[in-house]
Amino acid sequence: MSGCRIIDGRRIAAEIETETGMLIASAGERRRPCIVAVSIGNDPAAASYIRQKERAMARLSIEFRIKSFSSGVSKSQVSRFIEEASSDRSVDAVMVLSPVPQGYDIDELADIIPPGKDVDCMSTYSRGLLYSGRPLFSPATAEAVIEIMKHESVPVSGRHVVILGRSLVTGRPLASLLLMKGKEGDATVTVCHSRTEDLPRITRSADVLVAATGRPLSVAGTMIREGTVVIDVGISEIAVPGKQPRIVGDVDFESVSKVASALTPVPGGVGPVTTAVLMRNVVRAWSRSLS
Amino acid sequence: MSGCRIIDGRRIAAEIETETGMLIASAGERRRPCIVAVSIGNDPAAASYIRQKERAMARLSIEFRIKSFSSGVSKSQVSRFIEEASSDRSVDAVMVLSPVPQGYDIDELADIIPPGKDVDCMSTYSRGLLYSGRPLFSPATAEAVIEIMKHESVPVSGRHVVILGRSLVTGRPLASLLLMKGKEGDATVTVCHSRTEDLPRITRSADVLVAATGRPLSVAGTMIREGTVVIDVGISEIAVPGKQPRIVGDVDFESVSKVASALTPVPGGVGPVTTAVLMRNVVRAWSRSLS
Repeated sequence: MSGCRIIDGRRIAAEIETETGMLIASAGERRRPCIVAVSIGNDPAAASYIRQKERAMARLSIEFRIKSFSSGVSKSQVSRFIEEASSDRSVDAVMVLSPVPQGYDIDELADIIPPGKDVDCMSTYSRGLLYSGRPLFSPATAEAVIEIMKHESVPVSGRHVVILGRSLVTGRPLASLLLMKGKEGDATVTVCHSRTEDLPRITRSADVLVAATGRPLSVAGTMIREGTVVIDVGISEIAVPGKQPRIVGDVDFESVSKVASALTPVPGGVGPVTTAVLMRNVVRAWSRSLS
Repeated sequence: MSGCRIIDGRRIAAEIETETGMLIASAGERRRPCIVAVSIGNDPAAASYIRQKERAMARLSIEFRIKSFSSGVSKSQVSRFIEEASSDRSVDAVMVLSPVPQGYDIDELADIIPPGKDVDCMSTYSRGLLYSGRPLFSPATAEAVIEIMKHESVPVSGRHVVILGRSLVTGRPLASLLLMKGKEGDATVTVCHSRTEDLPRITRSADVLVAATGRPLSVAGTMIREGTVVIDVGISEIAVPGKQPRIVGDVDFESVSKVASALTPVPGGVGPVTTAVLMRNVVRAWSRSLS
């Protein structure tokens, strides 16, 4: 019996959502917060992203406009649309859904979004602010990890946080957030990835392990020491013969839960918190635009 | 006898300078490369920075224009000067010398510099490019560390590089460079700092240790394991009664050289390579402006 606490992401998300709802109510404004999401082509990942967010946005009466371009659209047409949304005063937030088909440059499109509307921190300038320790907005997934540790009172200052994965949506922005000065930062941060040699030696040194590689079930209990807090950012589908595919994380729940002191499940862990953080960012952008 | 190799930064700098000189010669251009450095106030650090760079720039016939404002200058006057230098076609590179007196915002001033002239990667946008893994220029000190490892054939791919210090001139940009994909990157990177708990446990796990905290002689031989490569970015003056102050690094050379497999001295290590890298960046900016 290790007494591993299973972290309830849905509860944390609900807490954040409640605060966000109060922020909307207290503004006493008639215009609703509005986010515009741009998708190109019919990628299933983008479609599933939209479905997840749509219900949550509706709960908070956030207007969620989706602009779907077919994969043959000209780059200039997409750019023009993003420019218009960016200068539209009734739009508080703009994002480009990933992935975009070959031939489109998501960085170039994201760079059109002004920092104040870049609620998922996609543009080069927004990333530069984050990297420099003064983010206006952070990528929602990375911020969700920070929120979970805050809500669960996981100390990070001075502690060793090991991040698996160096992506621009999780690994690298999370490293930047954890290296910031202050009570939710000041961590000692290690970033590991597919090229890392002798990974278990490094993961066993972690006080907190964040798995964000997208490789399903790749983190086993033997890789961590007793008492580690484990946050699982991964979300993958695994085929099960004759059944619905199974949704799993990067972490092998079974073996890790025997050793970790706390662990986020998949689903119901980082995912709902990410949605809640994104909505909070939209509402913050909206709230700033009112003042 | 550990056989610690003392890395000759002056030799590496000379090699880089020779290549840079050839790049200038091959262009067959009459206009010389030109960098404009802006300083505000009379900070001794900025003055010493200028002296170090001036001689090197002269060797390559790089025009080095220094604009010194007194500490009472208006912000708009400095901004206007940087704007003019930025749009001046005879100027290839612009930098603002650090530190600036209280009341001036170096980030705001650096943000005026266009990415193609931002040879020390000071602006938010340039930093965003670096963080995203597609730098146009990197901070010279961080790039100098990469150059040293390349010239000394120190493998980093998959290896554990521990960086002491999270500054925006060395620690953080170096982490970004080392996390890039490719042969000079792909390292497992840990960033430590003043808040790190149980530092020796982490430094003893390093294959390569980069000391960049500016705390003189703070890294002792007991903190590393046999065979570690140690790069010392620090440079401090220590008072010696009745004598000239002694220039030392962050590393206690005496004890570390008994354990490390290779070590950069101070002076004569990272410093001259940083100057050589900065000049190469100026010449690259110049060379791009010709095409």
